[in-house]
Amino acid sequence: MPTHFADALHQRLAAGASPICVGLDPVLDKIPPTLRAEHPAPADAIHHFSRGVIDSIRGLAPAVKFQSACYERHASQGVAALEASMRYARDAGLLVILDAKRGDIGISSEHYAAAAANAGAHAITLSGYLGPSTIAPFLASGLAVFVLVRTSNPDSDVVQAQRLADGRTVAEMMADLVHTLGASHLSTRGQSSVGAVVGATKAAEAAALRARMPNQIFLIPGYGAQGGTASDVRAMLTPSRQGILVTASRSVIYPQANSGEDWASAINRAAKSFAAEIATVITG
Amino acid sequence: MPTHFADALHQRLAAGASPICVGLDPVLDKIPPTLRAEHPAPADAIHHFSRGVIDSIRGLAPAVKFQSACYERHASQGVAALEASMRYARDAGLLVILDAKRGDIGISSEHYAAAAANAGAHAITLSGYLGPSTIAPFLASGLAVFVLVRTSNPDSDVVQAQRLADGRTVAEMMADLVHTLGASHLSTRGQSSVGAVVGATKAAEAAALRARMPNQIFLIPGYGAQGGTASDVRAMLTPSRQGILVTASRSVIYPQANSGEDWASAINRAAKSFAAEIATVITG
Repeated sequence: MPTHFADALHQRLAAGASPICVGLDPVLDKIPPTLRAEHPAPADAIHHFSRGVIDSIRGLAPAVKFQSACYERHASQGVAALEASMRYARDAGLLVILDAKRGDIGISSEHYAAAAANAGAHAITLSGYLGPSTIAPFLASGLAVFVLVRTSNPDSDVVQAQRLADGRTVAEMMADLVHTLGASHLSTRGQSSVGAVVGATKAAEAAALRARMPNQIFLIPGYGAQGGTASDVRAMLTPSRQGILVTASRSVIYPQANSGEDWASAINRAAKSFAAEIATVITG
Repeated sequence: MPTHFADALHQRLAAGASPICVGLDPVLDKIPPTLRAEHPAPADAIHHFSRGVIDSIRGLAPAVKFQSACYERHASQGVAALEASMRYARDAGLLVILDAKRGDIGISSEHYAAAAANAGAHAITLSGYLGPSTIAPFLASGLAVFVLVRTSNPDSDVVQAQRLADGRTVAEMMADLVHTLGASHLSTRGQSSVGAVVGATKAAEAAALRARMPNQIFLIPGYGAQGGTASDVRAMLTPSRQGILVTASRSVIYPQANSGEDWASAINRAAKSFAAEIATVITG
């Protein structure tokens, strides 16, 4: 039986890691020019950049999140690069989250789940708009899931902040669904393999969402570049100061290099800084 | 400037086609054994089956819908098969809908849009849970979109039938969003390139959804196998008896062959029968 995602994460945190997740959103025009010159084929460049990022963050970040769209953009070669990069991350001891935001009826979800599991993912992001049956096949295949509850983009309010007749927002309704689905998938420590995506920019709602999802790991985008702050993240902690996995993408994988510093070292430094910052959030 | 999706569909319907869309959901264990023997590699078998279906339905169905999950299941080779099959369908004069149900923040949506457009899609299915900015990049890339409004799976009620404080259901709220987004993307005949996925199994709500989305083409799954009937579909027509594209997958691509009939002929017969049935719905 595979290790429960929450237990695998806990092991890494107990060993001293900060609850961060580096987002791999590789786009060609931001990849270091030297690497591009070595690997002229776009999908090759993206794969080798992904490997470089993974080498630079292993031991620092417990998890890495692959933005599927950035790889899919380069067609089947890009998908091959995604698969190879996910395998590389898994072999490097990282927890692998495929940020694909899939969501389809049950039979199609089974196919998506098989694809993600075969490619080496430990977890996947999902949309719950089609209901519980869209999520169940991923759990059955042994993947952990992070369901979109409250996203960090400004116009998510148009849907997610709508108020239901019973007083909940649409996001809170989704949170309750996530909590219910997750209740039968708890680790020995009481954390669920059904997690939630909750943007750091929605801190005003963070406490309410945490109250509705006490067993969930929150995958938290929007920190830093998008305006989320330390106190925003702090509001999402459980009473035992756990249950978060804060993601950063561009600030870590495209850092400003110091004079004489190569890109891999700059990424390592950015990841260290991000890890230290989030560690402070928890103890602060 | 590319032809507006609604105009391209209208041309085909005006030439006598029935408003049907054949769903390509290829799974290995349902592909004809002779074809599997000729093409032992799974992705090859799926590609050649897809070509066979396209050859059997061209001239009969104006549109074909590719279930991305069925191809993605076979990793990068499956995605290559999807691309090649979509190109084949496009070259055969069919309107190509990629049923991928993507939905991410704007920059990631741009990547998904580029991938779909480059692969030859005319349209794509989307989730709107993240809000309008998730949809705009697809329109900017010249694709038509079908946004998930009311899906045919039984447990979609858990989310989509929730009642808002203002009296609308979540599905109706999404319908209003679709209508608003679509208003600036109308064809000369007043149909929008922002369409909606509305399951045939939700006929009780069909009239209300049509009233909210007068300019939308409804992409309608759930007819036949899932229980949707002719009167369910009829309730979704516009006053001028237009605005629908009824999909069928398994009933057309995996028909029961008559004695001595090859699989391609059986699919052709099933598509003819489906086309005639839906033509009757409209005139009936």
